[in-house]
Amino acid sequence: MNKRIRLGMVGGGEGAFIGAVHRIAARLDDGYELVAGAFSSDAVRSRASGAMLGIDALRTYASWQAMLDAERNRSDGIDAVAIVTPNHLHARIARDCLEAGLHVLCDKPLAATLDETVELARLARASDRLFCVTYTYCGYPLVRHARDMVAAGALGEIHSIQVRYAQDWLSEPLEASGHRQAAWRSDPAQAGEGGCIADIGTHAYHLARFVSGLNAQALLADLAHVVPGRRLDDNAHVLLRYANGARGMLWASQTAPGNANNLQLAVYGSRGGLTWRQEEPDELWFAPLGKSMRLIRRGAPELSASATTGTRVPMGHPEGYLEAFANLYRDFAVAIHAQRAECGKDMPAFPNIDDGLDGMRFVHTALASSRAGGVWLSLSDAASH
Amino acid sequence: MNKRIRLGMVGGGEGAFIGAVHRIAARLDDGYELVAGAFSSDAVRSRASGAMLGIDALRTYASWQAMLDAERNRSDGIDAVAIVTPNHLHARIARDCLEAGLHVLCDKPLAATLDETVELARLARASDRLFCVTYTYCGYPLVRHARDMVAAGALGEIHSIQVRYAQDWLSEPLEASGHRQAAWRSDPAQAGEGGCIADIGTHAYHLARFVSGLNAQALLADLAHVVPGRRLDDNAHVLLRYANGARGMLWASQTAPGNANNLQLAVYGSRGGLTWRQEEPDELWFAPLGKSMRLIRRGAPELSASATTGTRVPMGHPEGYLEAFANLYRDFAVAIHAQRAECGKDMPAFPNIDDGLDGMRFVHTALASSRAGGVWLSLSDAASH
Amino acid sequence: MNKRIRLGMVGGGEGAFIGAVHRIAARLDDGYELVAGAFSSDAVRSRASGAMLGIDALRTYASWQAMLDAERNRSDGIDAVAIVTPNHLHARIARDCLEAGLHVLCDKPLAATLDETVELARLARASDRLFCVTYTYCGYPLVRHARDMVAAGALGEIHSIQVRYAQDWLSEPLEASGHRQAAWRSDPAQAGEGGCIADIGTHAYHLARFVSGLNAQALLADLAHVVPGRRLDDNAHVLLRYANGARGMLWASQTAPGNANNLQLAVYGSRGGLTWRQEEPDELWFAPLGKSMRLIRRGAPELSASATTGTRVPMGHPEGYLEAFANLYRDFAVAIHAQRAECGKDMPAFPNIDDGLDGMRFVHTALASSRAGGVWLSLSDAASH
Amino acid sequence: MNKRIRLGMVGGGEGAFIGAVHRIAARLDDGYELVAGAFSSDAVRSRASGAMLGIDALRTYASWQAMLDAERNRSDGIDAVAIVTPNHLHARIARDCLEAGLHVLCDKPLAATLDETVELARLARASDRLFCVTYTYCGYPLVRHARDMVAAGALGEIHSIQVRYAQDWLSEPLEASGHRQAAWRSDPAQAGEGGCIADIGTHAYHLARFVSGLNAQALLADLAHVVPGRRLDDNAHVLLRYANGARGMLWASQTAPGNANNLQLAVYGSRGGLTWRQEEPDELWFAPLGKSMRLIRRGAPELSASATTGTRVPMGHPEGYLEAFANLYRDFAVAIHAQRAECGKDMPAFPNIDDGLDGMRFVHTALASSRAGGVWLSLSDAASH
Repeated sequence: MNKRIRLGMVGGGEGAFIGAVHRIAARLDDGYELVAGAFSSDAVRSRASGAMLGIDALRTYASWQAMLDAERNRSDGIDAVAIVTPNHLHARIARDCLEAGLHVLCDKPLAATLDETVELARLARASDRLFCVTYTYCGYPLVRHARDMVAAGALGEIHSIQVRYAQDWLSEPLEASGHRQAAWRSDPAQAGEGGCIADIGTHAYHLARFVSGLNAQALLADLAHVVPGRRLDDNAHVLLRYANGARGMLWASQTAPGNANNLQLAVYGSRGGLTWRQEEPDELWFAPLGKSMRLIRRGAPELSASATTGTRVPMGHPEGYLEAFANLYRDFAVAIHAQRAECGKDMPAFPNIDDGLDGMRFVHTALASSRAGGVWLSLSDAASH
Repeated sequence: MNKRIRLGMVGGGEGAFIGAVHRIAARLDDGYELVAGAFSSDAVRSRASGAMLGIDALRTYASWQAMLDAERNRSDGIDAVAIVTPNHLHARIARDCLEAGLHVLCDKPLAATLDETVELARLARASDRLFCVTYTYCGYPLVRHARDMVAAGALGEIHSIQVRYAQDWLSEPLEASGHRQAAWRSDPAQAGEGGCIADIGTHAYHLARFVSGLNAQALLADLAHVVPGRRLDDNAHVLLRYANGARGMLWASQTAPGNANNLQLAVYGSRGGLTWRQEEPDELWFAPLGKSMRLIRRGAPELSASATTGTRVPMGHPEGYLEAFANLYRDFAVAIHAQRAECGKDMPAFPNIDDGLDGMRFVHTALASSRAGGVWLSLSDAASH
Repeated sequence: MNKRIRLGMVGGGEGAFIGAVHRIAARLDDGYELVAGAFSSDAVRSRASGAMLGIDALRTYASWQAMLDAERNRSDGIDAVAIVTPNHLHARIARDCLEAGLHVLCDKPLAATLDETVELARLARASDRLFCVTYTYCGYPLVRHARDMVAAGALGEIHSIQVRYAQDWLSEPLEASGHRQAAWRSDPAQAGEGGCIADIGTHAYHLARFVSGLNAQALLADLAHVVPGRRLDDNAHVLLRYANGARGMLWASQTAPGNANNLQLAVYGSRGGLTWRQEEPDELWFAPLGKSMRLIRRGAPELSASATTGTRVPMGHPEGYLEAFANLYRDFAVAIHAQRAECGKDMPAFPNIDDGLDGMRFVHTALASSRAGGVWLSLSDAASH
Repeated sequence: MNKRIRLGMVGGGEGAFIGAVHRIAARLDDGYELVAGAFSSDAVRSRASGAMLGIDALRTYASWQAMLDAERNRSDGIDAVAIVTPNHLHARIARDCLEAGLHVLCDKPLAATLDETVELARLARASDRLFCVTYTYCGYPLVRHARDMVAAGALGEIHSIQVRYAQDWLSEPLEASGHRQAAWRSDPAQAGEGGCIADIGTHAYHLARFVSGLNAQALLADLAHVVPGRRLDDNAHVLLRYANGARGMLWASQTAPGNANNLQLAVYGSRGGLTWRQEEPDELWFAPLGKSMRLIRRGAPELSASATTGTRVPMGHPEGYLEAFANLYRDFAVAIHAQRAECGKDMPAFPNIDDGLDGMRFVHTALASSRAGGVWLSLSDAASH
């Protein structure tokens, strides 16, 4: 067994959703040990959170800077940092962590603006530290199998992609009534320039790209502020054009009653189609052209290696969001150990800084397109919009 | 019991799909009697079809003109005509029928071009004959119930509409190998200027409008010719903007493997959401904001009058496409009898010439938008595109 | 085209559910003409019903005997009779019809008691008239395809059968409050000795036998009267043992809230499994052992001839209960014409008098088993229980 | 934060399915520390497994007896033991653990025979150590909510229960070809007298009892050996009679192609019905009599406290089998801490020794009933069968 990776966390104090998810994900396969944290910018809250989590009080810090300084001088100091703060802090913390020689796992979107992201990406590429952006949904085994099927040509040439990510929790102006998650996610100063498009649209965009293997060249976006008074978009309609001539539609909404976390993808090619829904992640539908549809289930003997590796219990024993998240952590740990062993060849392909940058280009371009009234913009020129 | 309406048919000879559907629909509730037909422009084929159908040989004609001429002079001549030819003939036949004083049921799209449709609409409005455009899907009881729920405010203010109509039967170049349906539907001379957008996109568009009660003001379309060599579009991505500020996305495709006749609609408002799928038409999902989803089933006691009227068997006994189609025929018959009785007040609201014209405006504008590279165009200016 | 078969109906006056279903089924494919009827034992009600249906007043009778007498003497007299009365009258009417030289379509259960059924079967077998018992559910195309798959060995040796038929409409004592359907169906004098077991259990039993091709040798039943005061069973648990060693479970209930008409069948063999649900009749699930499940849809090119014949619209255009019912009528018509043409070889296999008798043996034996406290009884000794 | 509970494990070496599941479950909420183990009766294999798991070599033992002896003398010795061996060892190990003063988590069935189980239950009740039998499926939040709804009267008086647990992995004689899991599970010497009925039937039985709150009084079983040469049952049909007059049907099979781990429960009462499927555990269907069905989702605000407590991520983020399992571990930890604090009042109701004994009574009685040809036997007289 490899030694556990020593993990520090920034953000994720009591009551935060995603911090707890990261901790379970890190723990699930026993590959990490959470030993330090700056759980809140409020020192008292940070300390309370650390105590709740059984972290040594000496290693519970009031700021990430303090954590990096102190841990650097310990022989048992942290190896990696999980960044789970509101979006606007991601880039600064990530930069400091890389400069402190630490591996980084960071939530998406990578930063509040594209400029910041570009700079961070430059730094990360120059560094020998590993960088994972937690696009959770590519951690699902059947998403990986779908990607492998597409890559193996099971669908023929891809020509159409339909992706949707619908939620309903922002159907009312929660931010006006002090709801914590809603407040920061709808505040441009903390969430960045994008609302729904950045919070979940970017997941949908990444999923489509991950499975199809295609890069969008241009997009056209029509973003809406459905709830009166909301400062960021909460419903996004996007058209996409891919390099090979394929077209895509992307719908993201946080105001669609009846949708909890309804991310779904359909990819169509000349020889077949695939559909997958996050809320039933253990099922993948494959429609070979002219034949009956097949239900591919997680755990089936036919699955690709990457799908099988990310599976812990047999078919029929449901796995879910936490297991998918844990797959990112596991892959990241494998990569860290592989790097140490200097045998990088089999390093798993977790979502990295390039994926993070690509996601920010998507968000930035969608906002620019919508502001211009809904026009086609090139994604490769994102910086100029 | 009212006297059966005497029906003639144009098109729908042996092997045609939609002709047989119309005949069953007309027969289902015993409100019509098919007594005459010009089933094919090929006289021999027309006669053979008439014989198969048990139609008097004297009333099986070689052309619609011959039918109109002959029937006019019979005391038991036809009251109404069902037009089920390829699209490019719809308008001329419809015009002749109206001028012959007959009620008309016509397939969509109403004509091959917008100009023709505008002219036909002028004529139809000026006539006292009734005109039904067979937008089949609004015949489903739960589609009517959905409309009635929206109208009653169950969803609050509508802000987003998602509609999809996906098929896969044109995934390969069938038209190149002599497939009859595929041949005319992908030939601009017979189908008109639109392919998939006219054949099924227009159904999706009508369904969204029928249920939401909203009229689109502008659209932006990105149409594709997925199958190499195809002359008409076979995959359509459309964005919509409605009068009240609501937005819509419409996807229509005939090249999406795994989709047989997958029409689905989701409508979201400030207080709830509704979803319906044509392939499971006896189920309607209602999501009142913040409460658990409800499965509304055809035949439930809570259904609106228009949904209950169009129901023949109790909940759990599936009804389908033919029953929905028959509902249009039934409503049309009721309207004809009501008109005769000069008591028009409770005339059912079958899809009429205005709906047909609206659908052609949609097709025309989508084609213009796509040709222009995917730009926003106003629907009310359709004639000028 | 063959001449339409002239049909008379006994029962099925205004407000009756199953009479209207038979009429639509007869009409759907234009193979019958309803020309006479004794729609009610109440002459006024019969006449009113006939008028509503557009039947010649002279051919609307006050009793089936009157109908048989009068029609016999007409050159255009009826060829066949549909019997849709309460159960206790089935056998007498059927007997009189056969003796009058008419073909018979009769609802199940065939009679109120096994003795009566045995006698009727003797008569029917001796007659050259055709006899169809309307076990509706074997009219579904995919049920036929399932049977054909089993017969072709796709499942290997069958070892287990699970069948359920659950409804909820008798969850409350409707019969006490004057509900017409509920009243006769829960009255032993009209429904016969079985309640739920005869009304729907017999459908489930027939479906299992139809698809599996297996005959049960013994059963054990535990029948319940769930609703206080009810005179006939309303929930039935039955174990079955088949000739080849296979076992079955059958659950029928009319008191299971949330179930409208939830008939479902699963058949398992050494090489695969099949499942089908009446409420989604256009889908059949096939699980070949060790491979991914396939969704077989009505209209698929791979379907067997008997499944394809019973299909009117393409895949994705839902068909339902009325279409399944119409398939029985269509097959019966084909058989009548084939008999006339003296070319009986390709006569379709509609459910016949033997199926009806078999169903009554099942009901009778289940009642006997349950009365005895739930013991195993042989089905072949049914008459002795 | 409470101190982590120090856990030892017996069984669960490399390649074992359920050992790994227990370890993840223990780790998920950070309430346990796995510090010792006798992972295999083969000392070399045990040591290798311990090393893989990062367990101190000194605390990796060759037998459970060695583990108990050594750990007793450590100040940091284990507090609790997880028993995950083949069934026939459960009882002996559990007894030794209790006598060593340790809390016990043990897989079901509790023992190979009823006699052994009765003796163990006597011991466990006399002990002040806590005992959990891992009936996994009652760990699912919606199963707990279903129980709470029934207890609160949402269904009225329960009258019918339908429970199924179907798998297909034993459809072929795997045990003959050296498959490890199949070999011990179909060997009476290791699995005990029951096959499918003990391996999964007991889960189904427990689930029905857990949700309905009803105790079965009598049962009748028809067990089959579907695969030729198999020594234990692999398909079980069981009828149940409950104290209040309710009836049940239970089907368990390991030879039903297409079923992976298809456990499903339906409970019907005078006022409503509930259905739940393990393979989609985040959905619970509630059918209030006469109203539309509701889809209750894990994470919904309306859920009962016990369902909410066992939930880690919001609605729409799927949870599964490991999370359900972890809920048992969590509850057990809470109970241990509560006991230490001498404040037993809020101790969670994990499945305990009585549930384990009840399950063995079920297995024993079902076997006796089937051996006798399928007769009704009282469950309270289980010991005498």
